[in-house]
Amino acid sequence: MSKSTNPTRQRILDAAVERFANNGYHDTSVADIVDDSGTSKGAVYFHFPSKQDIFLGLVDHFATILEDRLSEAIAQEESGVRRVNVALSVCLETFAAYKKLAKIFLIQATGLGTVFEEKRREIHKRFIDVIQRHLDEAVQEGDLLTIDTEIAAYAWMGAINEVVIEWVYTGHPEPARALPALQNILLRSIGVSEEQIQQLDPNANK
Amino acid sequence: MSKSTNPTRQRILDAAVERFANNGYHDTSVADIVDDSGTSKGAVYFHFPSKQDIFLGLVDHFATILEDRLSEAIAQEESGVRRVNVALSVCLETFAAYKKLAKIFLIQATGLGTVFEEKRREIHKRFIDVIQRHLDEAVQEGDLLTIDTEIAAYAWMGAINEVVIEWVYTGHPEPARALPALQNILLRSIGVSEEQIQQLDPNANK
Repeated sequence: MSKSTNPTRQRILDAAVERFANNGYHDTSVADIVDDSGTSKGAVYFHFPSKQDIFLGLVDHFATILEDRLSEAIAQEESGVRRVNVALSVCLETFAAYKKLAKIFLIQATGLGTVFEEKRREIHKRFIDVIQRHLDEAVQEGDLLTIDTEIAAYAWMGAINEVVIEWVYTGHPEPARALPALQNILLRSIGVSEEQIQQLDPNANK
Repeated sequence: MSKSTNPTRQRILDAAVERFANNGYHDTSVADIVDDSGTSKGAVYFHFPSKQDIFLGLVDHFATILEDRLSEAIAQEESGVRRVNVALSVCLETFAAYKKLAKIFLIQATGLGTVFEEKRREIHKRFIDVIQRHLDEAVQEGDLLTIDTEIAAYAWMGAINEVVIEWVYTGHPEPARALPALQNILLRSIGVSEEQIQQLDPNANK
């Protein structure tokens, strides 16, 4: 996990990831997290007034990791379609690399009441806005058809979410298969041609 | 709402839709539903042992309406791509026509604990299987590229879900805009060409 600024806060979050992922939200107590983190009750309550705050802290932490990785990867690409493509790879790879956090975010967050549902929507919206901004840039650069980028951004968010949730729940479909397939589907959906898709694929013969 | 076989059961479900949609699941009691339905406490408990059973009954009811409409529409189309296209229209139109039920299914079902999350996944899986079966048929008929139909089915389910949830929550984007845009995005995603998409559009000049 990428490190947050405060080492105690980070130890609490690390312990919470393990507990929530293995035992579920409801069957984890703040006392469990105090024990596992090797910190103190006072320290935990100083950083997080309640179990719910620990959970929301984790969700934000994951969203921030993902945003940081996206910004970094996108900054290195020149053209709109390449940026969209690399963003999609980074997104799927980040979920794979942080599977436990992803599980907490995607599974435990559903079914935990209105607060979490609002958090889920807030984070979806954050990423939908990022997707739309980059789709708009690609359209402006003439790389893409003139598409309804807002609807496309929602569609992408939903598609990625559904595939990742299924994989986190069941271990299927395995990322090595799902990632390239989903990437092709989403790139095609915005009018990227088969030739362009071939050129974007680092494994394809050029 | 399409009618279920038992008129009392149907009256209970009709009353429950209104109550859940207007007041939310948590702030609705079985007594409210008894009152609104004009039936009796005994009748309600005969059909539904608990409030949760009423809710799950509604979710199943909506899924069945949608499946019936899909089967009917699909049976009238000849080619694979046309069947896929009409299925998508029917799906989006059904959510629009049954907005209150959709709201209950999509919003209230999240955040209500593990039972509902499992029901949501079960229903998603039911429709993912339907989508995949029809995509497979279209591929076999040579209408489509050889795509990974399972991943495509997950992607479609997620995309539709995300757009519909946003619309049910916020009233935006309005269906008249979202439906054709989403349809084009999803058809493109499986390799249907711009020419074919034009031909499928009943409003396009032929």
